[in-house]
Amino acid sequence: MKIIDGGVTAAKGFFAAGAEAGIKYQGRKDMALVYSEAPALSAGVFTTNVVKAAPVLWDQKLVKEQPAARAVVLNSGIANACTGEEGRKINRSMAQEVAKELGILPEQVLTASTGVIGMQLPQEKLREGSRKLAAALSPGREGGKMAAEAIMTTDTVSKECAVCFEAGGKTVTIGGMAKGSGMIYPNMATMLAVVTTDADISKPLLQKALNRDVKTTFNQISVDRDTSTNDTLLLLANGLAKNKPITEENEDFDIFCRGLHMVTESLARQMAGDGEGATKLFTVTVVNAGDPESAAVLSKAVITSNLVKTALYGSDANWGRILCALGYSGVSFDPEKVDLYIESAAGRLQLVKNGMATDYSEELATKILSEKEVTAVADMKQGKAEATAWGCDLTYDYVKINGDYRS
Amino acid sequence: MKIIDGGVTAAKGFFAAGAEAGIKYQGRKDMALVYSEAPALSAGVFTTNVVKAAPVLWDQKLVKEQPAARAVVLNSGIANACTGEEGRKINRSMAQEVAKELGILPEQVLTASTGVIGMQLPQEKLREGSRKLAAALSPGREGGKMAAEAIMTTDTVSKECAVCFEAGGKTVTIGGMAKGSGMIYPNMATMLAVVTTDADISKPLLQKALNRDVKTTFNQISVDRDTSTNDTLLLLANGLAKNKPITEENEDFDIFCRGLHMVTESLARQMAGDGEGATKLFTVTVVNAGDPESAAVLSKAVITSNLVKTALYGSDANWGRILCALGYSGVSFDPEKVDLYIESAAGRLQLVKNGMATDYSEELATKILSEKEVTAVADMKQGKAEATAWGCDLTYDYVKINGDYRS
Repeated sequence: MKIIDGGVTAAKGFFAAGAEAGIKYQGRKDMALVYSEAPALSAGVFTTNVVKAAPVLWDQKLVKEQPAARAVVLNSGIANACTGEEGRKINRSMAQEVAKELGILPEQVLTASTGVIGMQLPQEKLREGSRKLAAALSPGREGGKMAAEAIMTTDTVSKECAVCFEAGGKTVTIGGMAKGSGMIYPNMATMLAVVTTDADISKPLLQKALNRDVKTTFNQISVDRDTSTNDTLLLLANGLAKNKPITEENEDFDIFCRGLHMVTESLARQMAGDGEGATKLFTVTVVNAGDPESAAVLSKAVITSNLVKTALYGSDANWGRILCALGYSGVSFDPEKVDLYIESAAGRLQLVKNGMATDYSEELATKILSEKEVTAVADMKQGKAEATAWGCDLTYDYVKINGDYRS
Repeated sequence: MKIIDGGVTAAKGFFAAGAEAGIKYQGRKDMALVYSEAPALSAGVFTTNVVKAAPVLWDQKLVKEQPAARAVVLNSGIANACTGEEGRKINRSMAQEVAKELGILPEQVLTASTGVIGMQLPQEKLREGSRKLAAALSPGREGGKMAAEAIMTTDTVSKECAVCFEAGGKTVTIGGMAKGSGMIYPNMATMLAVVTTDADISKPLLQKALNRDVKTTFNQISVDRDTSTNDTLLLLANGLAKNKPITEENEDFDIFCRGLHMVTESLARQMAGDGEGATKLFTVTVVNAGDPESAAVLSKAVITSNLVKTALYGSDANWGRILCALGYSGVSFDPEKVDLYIESAAGRLQLVKNGMATDYSEELATKILSEKEVTAVADMKQGKAEATAWGCDLTYDYVKINGDYRS
């Protein structure tokens, strides 16, 4: 398994582009296209929000019913959510424009939107954008990079990852891109992410791998506990690696899942670390919990707590707030057994032993918490299950960004 | 039913005091005492957090097992949570000191603490504070006021309310005090609140009235979705109104419940409006929901959303975030039926009709949202159930207060 430089164009036969369509933002890329030269099987995981954006409804149908996908068109600036029948029509025409440019069927074009809720997408600009995207499609590093940049909203950096490995006698590649960075509390889904692979793998196994994977990656991050209307994670597999087809849960499937996990975990971490206004990536690992689900719930309770997040921003070792969050998570445990550690590049420190403060150095604690990447480890001493969740601090800039996002 | 000026000393036979004990804060009151000259029946609702502070464990036992209570001693600054056996011993001694001063039994003294988690209370200062409190006890307006001030932490104003009404042929009074203002997400409980009444009412009915009441008052507020380790709501009834005893769910019980509701709803609203860093009280009413529980869940999803709260701070009519929060609440509904209104002293405006934006004036919307008290009404068009929840905006000051609360 090797991490390589790349994103959605890393796997064979995938092209991508980003373009300035002027949908809402000016002077920056706001439309992206991912294209597979061969028909690709698709799998997807979507928001559990009852309020679903038009592209989510479109993709859910396509992933389920269509034999193959050829492209994904994405835009930032406007979410096409709460836009009614008119919004669904515009979304369909977005797929149609791209299909026309690429000489494929509209039903082969998946869509994804992110941005302000409740505004209609300007159809003329989508048309112009589609033309630009089709003309700019590139199979190289640049294409993937431009696409990853085009889907950013309040993100400060673009998010990509790719890996390659041997499976079925061939080199298989998986690469992806994602965008954060507010309204991030995926629940069987995430914000926008597209992962591509040249693996030859059956459709049921592709979806199975993705469903299993999100539980420990995208579903374990939070910026603000707000589950978006547009969460979309798509995985396309075009088979161009020409590996022995993966049609059962054998060794090849296992290595495919491991490769997928490396890409999605990296994208999820990048998202959490680039949460709106964030200055720090916060990793919370819960060990020795009673069962895997409890471990996941406990770790998420800590990363979603506003009080823990503000203390982290202030580099304040206010461990009582972490114990408090574990305590209201809904999971039952003995508070007087819990141990708590913090660690970062500056060191490792045990703050709590059996539910009470150790005689730790506040100075060292502050030093550890002042780093860009901070980890907290809670030992529940209940069983053997473990889970990790990723979040970020809550800062002035989060308030600033969201106090006036629409304008 | 009449609202009167007063708090915990409004009802007959209740005395209170606040004192400077120097527990953690300097130059301000940080201990409070409420005393009933006659034995009082007690009812209580407490935090559902698995991590429970020492005073919570003490009170739960007393309320259940003791025939009567005579006093409540409270302190701010240190929460006595995550303090182990030592913390439980100090809590007991806090009750003992007060009992000694008042000539009553320690088992007649309820306790409550609020403040930093994980520090031990200084026993010598508790002793000195208890002496001061006993000496300062007063049945008048001043005693209640001093007590309400002494339990404040990051609260900016003290919180009191009292009502009187006729029941069983006599004038009955109910009065209370409460403190917020961070770690507020009560769940069958709240932060510290003490409500006193001179009603003659049976213990089962007293607890029943309280349990029923919190569902629509304290359990419907949130500042930051963090359920504290110390949430305590106590209700004491000493019978000195000499009304015909309330021992069944008759008309007198109903009016008692209405009186209790006026006091607790007022205290709950005061808490939400004085949330840490808050500049606005935010009321969310959900009407025509499918059932009462769904209505409550929907309204709470909106007041707890960081994105809705920051938009409110910026007076930005970003209604998509409200629909989004309704959508991820876990309640099922048809998004394309929802209507949404905002209102305040500056007017009333329909923002959304059948899930989509109306042609509303952004200028008027901003004006409405710029007021100190803002209400949003969501019409689900599903059934006849209604619920109201109270919260506040999320501001720079919330981050500031909590980025460095311990120091």
